[in-house]
Amino acid sequence: MLASRRRSVLAIDLGGTKIIAAAVLSTGEIISRKYSLTLADEGPRPVINRLSSAVAETMAQAKLKTSSDVVGIGIAAAGILDTNEGIITTSPNLPGWRDVPLRDIIAERLGLTTYLINDASAAALGEHRSGAGKGVDNLIYLTVSTGIGGGIIIDGELYSGADGCAGEIGHMIIETHGPQCNCGKFGCLEALASGSAMTRESVRRLNQGEKSSIVELVAGRLESITAETVSLAARQGDSLACDIVARAANYLGIGLANLVNIFNPELIVIGGGVSKMGNMLLAPTRKAVREIAFKLPARTARIVRARLGSNAGIIGAAVYVFEQQPKGGRKA
Amino acid sequence: MLASRRRSVLAIDLGGTKIIAAAVLSTGEIISRKYSLTLADEGPRPVINRLSSAVAETMAQAKLKTSSDVVGIGIAAAGILDTNEGIITTSPNLPGWRDVPLRDIIAERLGLTTYLINDASAAALGEHRSGAGKGVDNLIYLTVSTGIGGGIIIDGELYSGADGCAGEIGHMIIETHGPQCNCGKFGCLEALASGSAMTRESVRRLNQGEKSSIVELVAGRLESITAETVSLAARQGDSLACDIVARAANYLGIGLANLVNIFNPELIVIGGGVSKMGNMLLAPTRKAVREIAFKLPARTARIVRARLGSNAGIIGAAVYVFEQQPKGGRKA
Repeated sequence: MLASRRRSVLAIDLGGTKIIAAAVLSTGEIISRKYSLTLADEGPRPVINRLSSAVAETMAQAKLKTSSDVVGIGIAAAGILDTNEGIITTSPNLPGWRDVPLRDIIAERLGLTTYLINDASAAALGEHRSGAGKGVDNLIYLTVSTGIGGGIIIDGELYSGADGCAGEIGHMIIETHGPQCNCGKFGCLEALASGSAMTRESVRRLNQGEKSSIVELVAGRLESITAETVSLAARQGDSLACDIVARAANYLGIGLANLVNIFNPELIVIGGGVSKMGNMLLAPTRKAVREIAFKLPARTARIVRARLGSNAGIIGAAVYVFEQQPKGGRKA
Repeated sequence: MLASRRRSVLAIDLGGTKIIAAAVLSTGEIISRKYSLTLADEGPRPVINRLSSAVAETMAQAKLKTSSDVVGIGIAAAGILDTNEGIITTSPNLPGWRDVPLRDIIAERLGLTTYLINDASAAALGEHRSGAGKGVDNLIYLTVSTGIGGGIIIDGELYSGADGCAGEIGHMIIETHGPQCNCGKFGCLEALASGSAMTRESVRRLNQGEKSSIVELVAGRLESITAETVSLAARQGDSLACDIVARAANYLGIGLANLVNIFNPELIVIGGGVSKMGNMLLAPTRKAVREIAFKLPARTARIVRARLGSNAGIIGAAVYVFEQQPKGGRKA
């Protein structure tokens, strides 16, 4: 009984900047956790090697022995994933990754059943099972950081669509003639309300000669501006920064109003680095949703911050494996 | 056995122009069908009276006796409906209807269990059970007519959200600074790709002095232009009309691409009067979806025309009652 209760999932969050590997119990408890740099510019092969090593080291660190102690491996990754086939078809944060069968590569290397899941879908599942969305039937999760990702929970289960790539909320076009997005299209929610959208808008307006304390915060190096810089300046009352946050919040509100009208969800959970702005971002976002969405669904949908922080992906990937969804797993 | 097989649902499609009442068998067969005018301008009370009469007459016509022959009443209506409570909260086509508890009014008047369902949701269910969407797990239904409505089927079941008002796809904002919609907001899909959007755009451009055979088709009376007029002129090669159809198709494609990225559905079914344009509308719409949505889900999602025509609503409302969804029904 004790032995079976202690069985872990080896959960990986493969991001553009870092790889988090962890051993996670079915309770959601993390018994071992390891960071390494992705160094994505080196291309798929070295990244896959680092990912394998991180898994192996996490196993050793947590004193886990193959198969008896480990339920399987769950890899959460950004990008358009064919989760049925375990393939990363394309990923904005992993340059050079085209149709990489990551699931099968890892399963074969490590001799463990492996699952691949979109990182925002994993975070949605994590927040639903042990974060801000506990006990709710229908919720939409959004991660707002450099980009915008999404995950959908319907009737308490992850909704993943025909190929397993549902939830690309960040690429919902809300301003057809808007600015170009990282995906190549124009006017996506991500191009208007993400951290990189705020950065780009700041640089654009500063280059037009507008004044802002942002310039001092980055010592004149505009290329160093991040959403955090904008946030800091806005907190200090800088007018340009406040304007940029308000603009992003309004677009985020339009995107969420669309989701409220389409899904009539009980809850919208906002995670990701930009959500750390808290009510400075979320209060005007909520206001926009109330003004734009129909009254009945707008009254129902609570909009709250995520609770699991940077652990959402690994906890969700672990949940995904523990619940052993029949599709998407690859036996070693 | 024969008796139980012959039990009917009294299905109503309450539209802004007409009321269709029908007796429908569990096979989807319509054994009796009756039209009456809604005369919506007279306000809720007379419309509710006409609706009751239409139901009673349909029962008589089909020789149905209360309760033994009738499973219940299913009312499909346009608008934002609280289907859990059986209330029409607001409806674009029914002026003056605010929080009308239509389900309970009809249940009490006619002494039959009654259900209320959004008309596009009903059509989605109808098309899924006996139309273009048979056997598909996940589909999105859109009705494109004067307005644009939507219905969502997930895992073979109608997805209705927390209050039962999910599926308001027509009010997805895709052009934040676009034209005003009938709902009061700006840049909704309905304001850009519906029949009324095509009409409005035609009138605007003709008033700017552009030439078109549309003018002859309506004998100079621009207020008589409908989407059908535009369609007819486009078929005859009129350049303005072709342009207007292409523009609407492109916006429809943007809306569908958003849905493809969010839902990764197997199928999108397009019904409603404007869908009668066929490939003149749908070919450029499909092209836009392929260009805008991510490759993987775009390759999967087939976009087809609905099959049930104006019967979709009553067949779907009947299916809804036959499947006796526990929520939303009101025992007499």
